[in-house]
Amino acid sequence: MTTEVLASYLRDSWWTPADPAGAAVVVDASTGAPITRVSTAGIDMAAVLDHARTVGQRTLGALTFHQRAVLLKQMATALTERKEELYELSTTAGSTRRDSLSDVDGGIGVLFTYSSKGRRELPDGRVYLDGPIETLSKDGTFLGRHVYTRLTGVAVQINAFNFPMWGALEKFAPAFLAGVPSVIKPATPTGYVAEAWVRMLADSGLLPDGALQLVSGPVPGLLEALRLGDLVGFTGSADTARRLRASVSPDVRFTSETDSINASVLGPDAVAGTPEFDAYVKQLMVELTTKAGQKCTAIRRAIVPAAEADAVVEALRTLLEARTVLGDPRAEGVTMGPLVSRGQRDEVIRHVGLLQDAGGRLLLGDLAEPQVRRADGTTGAAPGGAFLAPLLIGFDDPTTAAAHDVEAFGPVASLLPYATVAEAADLITRGGGSLVTSVATGDPAVALELLTATAASNGRMLFLDRADARSSTGHGAPVPHLVHGGPGRAGGGEELGGMRAVLHHMQRTAVQGSPDMLTALTGVWHTGAEAASAGIHPFRKPLSDLRIGDRVDSPEREVALADIETFARFTGDTFYAHMDETAAAANPFFPGRVAHGYLLVSWAAGLFVDPDPGPVLANYGLEDLRFVTPVSPGDRIRVTLTAKQITPRETDDYGEVRWDALIRNQRDETVATYDVLTLVAKTWEAAEPVPA
Amino acid sequence: MTTEVLASYLRDSWWTPADPAGAAVVVDASTGAPITRVSTAGIDMAAVLDHARTVGQRTLGALTFHQRAVLLKQMATALTERKEELYELSTTAGSTRRDSLSDVDGGIGVLFTYSSKGRRELPDGRVYLDGPIETLSKDGTFLGRHVYTRLTGVAVQINAFNFPMWGALEKFAPAFLAGVPSVIKPATPTGYVAEAWVRMLADSGLLPDGALQLVSGPVPGLLEALRLGDLVGFTGSADTARRLRASVSPDVRFTSETDSINASVLGPDAVAGTPEFDAYVKQLMVELTTKAGQKCTAIRRAIVPAAEADAVVEALRTLLEARTVLGDPRAEGVTMGPLVSRGQRDEVIRHVGLLQDAGGRLLLGDLAEPQVRRADGTTGAAPGGAFLAPLLIGFDDPTTAAAHDVEAFGPVASLLPYATVAEAADLITRGGGSLVTSVATGDPAVALELLTATAASNGRMLFLDRADARSSTGHGAPVPHLVHGGPGRAGGGEELGGMRAVLHHMQRTAVQGSPDMLTALTGVWHTGAEAASAGIHPFRKPLSDLRIGDRVDSPEREVALADIETFARFTGDTFYAHMDETAAAANPFFPGRVAHGYLLVSWAAGLFVDPDPGPVLANYGLEDLRFVTPVSPGDRIRVTLTAKQITPRETDDYGEVRWDALIRNQRDETVATYDVLTLVAKTWEAAEPVPA
Repeated sequence: MTTEVLASYLRDSWWTPADPAGAAVVVDASTGAPITRVSTAGIDMAAVLDHARTVGQRTLGALTFHQRAVLLKQMATALTERKEELYELSTTAGSTRRDSLSDVDGGIGVLFTYSSKGRRELPDGRVYLDGPIETLSKDGTFLGRHVYTRLTGVAVQINAFNFPMWGALEKFAPAFLAGVPSVIKPATPTGYVAEAWVRMLADSGLLPDGALQLVSGPVPGLLEALRLGDLVGFTGSADTARRLRASVSPDVRFTSETDSINASVLGPDAVAGTPEFDAYVKQLMVELTTKAGQKCTAIRRAIVPAAEADAVVEALRTLLEARTVLGDPRAEGVTMGPLVSRGQRDEVIRHVGLLQDAGGRLLLGDLAEPQVRRADGTTGAAPGGAFLAPLLIGFDDPTTAAAHDVEAFGPVASLLPYATVAEAADLITRGGGSLVTSVATGDPAVALELLTATAASNGRMLFLDRADARSSTGHGAPVPHLVHGGPGRAGGGEELGGMRAVLHHMQRTAVQGSPDMLTALTGVWHTGAEAASAGIHPFRKPLSDLRIGDRVDSPEREVALADIETFARFTGDTFYAHMDETAAAANPFFPGRVAHGYLLVSWAAGLFVDPDPGPVLANYGLEDLRFVTPVSPGDRIRVTLTAKQITPRETDDYGEVRWDALIRNQRDETVATYDVLTLVAKTWEAAEPVPA
Repeated sequence: MTTEVLASYLRDSWWTPADPAGAAVVVDASTGAPITRVSTAGIDMAAVLDHARTVGQRTLGALTFHQRAVLLKQMATALTERKEELYELSTTAGSTRRDSLSDVDGGIGVLFTYSSKGRRELPDGRVYLDGPIETLSKDGTFLGRHVYTRLTGVAVQINAFNFPMWGALEKFAPAFLAGVPSVIKPATPTGYVAEAWVRMLADSGLLPDGALQLVSGPVPGLLEALRLGDLVGFTGSADTARRLRASVSPDVRFTSETDSINASVLGPDAVAGTPEFDAYVKQLMVELTTKAGQKCTAIRRAIVPAAEADAVVEALRTLLEARTVLGDPRAEGVTMGPLVSRGQRDEVIRHVGLLQDAGGRLLLGDLAEPQVRRADGTTGAAPGGAFLAPLLIGFDDPTTAAAHDVEAFGPVASLLPYATVAEAADLITRGGGSLVTSVATGDPAVALELLTATAASNGRMLFLDRADARSSTGHGAPVPHLVHGGPGRAGGGEELGGMRAVLHHMQRTAVQGSPDMLTALTGVWHTGAEAASAGIHPFRKPLSDLRIGDRVDSPEREVALADIETFARFTGDTFYAHMDETAAAANPFFPGRVAHGYLLVSWAAGLFVDPDPGPVLANYGLEDLRFVTPVSPGDRIRVTLTAKQITPRETDDYGEVRWDALIRNQRDETVATYDVLTLVAKTWEAAEPVPA
């Protein structure tokens, strides 16, 4: 055996054991040929953790959310440039090109999504504000606010073999964006794919020191060494999850995502011949064959109207025969690869046996060594490979416990007939908690009944109908925007879901204090805090000069009845509350004729604007406008505009400034409150006036 | 012994054991006289759980969030009317009137707050939408959305003895609002107070069947019988939390809130003589004496600049001497009551011994049986009562492990000197996770350093300065608006925090589907879903007739240059982008002169409004306005307004309607998007025109 030992990336350099005694041998999924060996004999796990907690925390802590987001995009680009290498390597693990779209492109896609969402949805700082200000005293001097700050330790990410790239990056991206360093532990059978993309990232020079470490093999003592501030993200079997959780201190956050017995329901309306039926069967075929069914999200239970069961079997048979070419992914035309190893194949067959013992009958496929297309293009048996044909197992009694409990982690699904929608819902929940349930129906009543009865048992529910049959991303594909994970059997954790996964790497803390203190602590101006009205108009200040609390206090302007009528004529808004004294007075909210709300905000803009060209480039929006006190003819309004939040863009020469706008009347009552959103240049040279 | 056995409220009626063999005897905290006995011998826990999961789920599920919220307010009112009885009963447990403000009024306050926040922040339905729509396909036919639906089981709430009312209601209110039935297990020493307020609620007739059960005593086999869909909320010691957690299935949500070694820091600027110093010492006194220090949030570690340590001790001594009257709460003038029991007193003294063994010195107070004011007004020893004087324990070495680890759950705090702010931060985190840390400082730099270094170790941080010293709700007082709970030693859970605690009783599920399907499933109109423009103007429809998707499509209107100039003159908004072609064209975002954004929304209102009196009573606000495409002179705009969300108010004859507004130009490009918020009457009789 001359195969080299797979390297680990520890403390910002590559490491292999001096004496890899007892190393595990990893083989090619299609041929059984040895590829690499795995050992971490002699690894200093304490030093790995310490490096993350010190160096990794320091380098990531020096960056803002947006700076980290920009790095994620650069990493995604670096990996994109070399993705053909990753496709090639992935064939060794049994991945077809379609499988690599999930794993390689899917993984890169997570980085891109977290980069763009991070810059759009997080501030360009290190603290995330959660929810609105809570006023805790009548006089407004005592406020509450929730903030998220990053955890102070390390994120240990334990991945499954089926997605060595996507599975690791979907954990790494949110941790990185949160500012928490990662220690990645890939699964042995496909750890060489993880090693490859980590090497590409290390080569790119984009990884801050300590931000990512890769342990290519066993992690002795790692979990026991974790403490408050650390977290574990685990993907794998439910049994392993329970065992690992028990060895970790309860002070450590433990997120697990375990393969579950996911269901896919054909609605009673979706009979053969409907677009929903076709979409259902096609999806079932895709889920059986992609990654040879080795997906924690794959369909394990096809729940169909009893009357449609035969039609589903036949349609699936036809599709599989027409579309599925089982073989070595290196051969032309192969659409379905092997399982990851012979050992895994044995496990699947063992579980199929359990399903058969419980009364399951093979409706499609068999357990024999299949004829496959080999790498050289010939067809025949490939006994060194881990091939298995797709299997559909029928149960007469859909409540058979094994069908809801036994997972054959391969191209295997059970077919369960139902009579009523309530029965279908009951079958779904018998899974004990799933990552995903999909439903093919064009009937909103069916969809609503199933959602109401089973949403609490599912992390995700996908509704297929003729409108989204073509555009759907599919039952088995988590998307970075939506949470991935589910209750109960599915592990009880949440991953992805956009910024939700970032926040899982942070601690929510309620902060109480005075407006000035909360402004200082959050970088966002809070009503009641000091503000600076003196000096030049804040619209003349570029981001380099503008400060939180910079303010314009406008003069007063009287709203005459004639103004209201002018505005009504100009806009066409002749709503009776503005035009008809008697009718207006009969309205429960108005004392009589009142000014249009839009007149008030329009005038407010006229009162606070600084008209000449300057660093304020545009007003791109407005938020949270509330009209509080009506304005009657003869009232006088004035507006106060205060710089509330400043968000420079990392990759543009301008940024966003949010202004707090407060319109009051001559009695100092609040007339309206809102936030004005503007784009402001980072720098500005006072130029000669532009010739008209 | 003739004392009756305390009743349990099970399956909507009162129950006591037939044979209370081995019942625990509960005694008066001040006198030691027996009050009641506690036993649940022979209780049928399975029937209790089954009742909650069937009847309780059904009755609560029949109500909307708002209907549950209204009930919470009615319950709060019913308890308010009888709170003098509760004050009186609470004195038996050692509570002074001030203590009962936290427990009785605090508990009622939680109900009121959840009622009002629930109606303001939740929809009047059963599904809560989390976050924005995620568009998952380019053509907009496939969308994603997160929904929360209630858990399908029972909330088991295990409470501590110190807050028999607040502690139970702060768990019950969010569960009830979420629609999850509660089984409440009070602590034995004060279970009779819980029995009293539950009886008041039961008498009020406001409790839906199965929504609340009270088990006044041991709960044999309860935790082991829990399963997916159930949850446990535990308050008590960290050791008990770990033990209980281990006996519950990992499928069950387990929230624990455990007493922690909370810190209060005096900033280096807050020297004697400053308002911050005074606020700090006063707060320390309050936390030592309220509930005789039996609060999980109490200050256990007073972390002060070494140079100020003596001044703090002296100021605290002076305050305690001036303000503290230890005694039976039934006696006039008593400000500090006993511990809950002699056994608890022994425990506190034992822990004080551990602190002394570790080097702690008694700076204030002693362990002797104190002279107290007895119920009859006389002063002297009360050896049947559980009295203990406030104790301050000094440590020369502030890093002494016991000071950060040993909790004496009574009127006991350690005084720890520090040299630098970084050292103070390190001391805070040595607590291993706290419910709350407070900081008295007027220096934002000190506050920011401590927040940054320790927020991840704290569930709540309170900053005291001269601006909020008087209005602060205090170190030890959780408020319903903010999360209560903390990482690590504090249990790792979250309670309260407004709607956050409601959502902890619900499951988040990602839902994917077409716009029509998501509209049907959420009751909120999604862009791309069907809309109905035919028939009468939707502004003529009261809530009884209005449907999601009802729409106005306006005619086009051309924006002429003269209109822009008219609007500029009328509003005073002469920003150059509207007035100066050359300067506007030089702006990176505009092709040349463009219409004011406020002109567009004002005209849009003119285009969609229906002017005569009708069910639409007022436009009370606007949200999420974004200007997408600039409008140049000569462009033509039109607006589409679609009923997006309808929220009738339970207690008013109108409700809120949110409209999706979309302004487009003659090229069908999106000009602006926003939501218009209106108040609409539930019913409307077409009246004769109101005479002008």
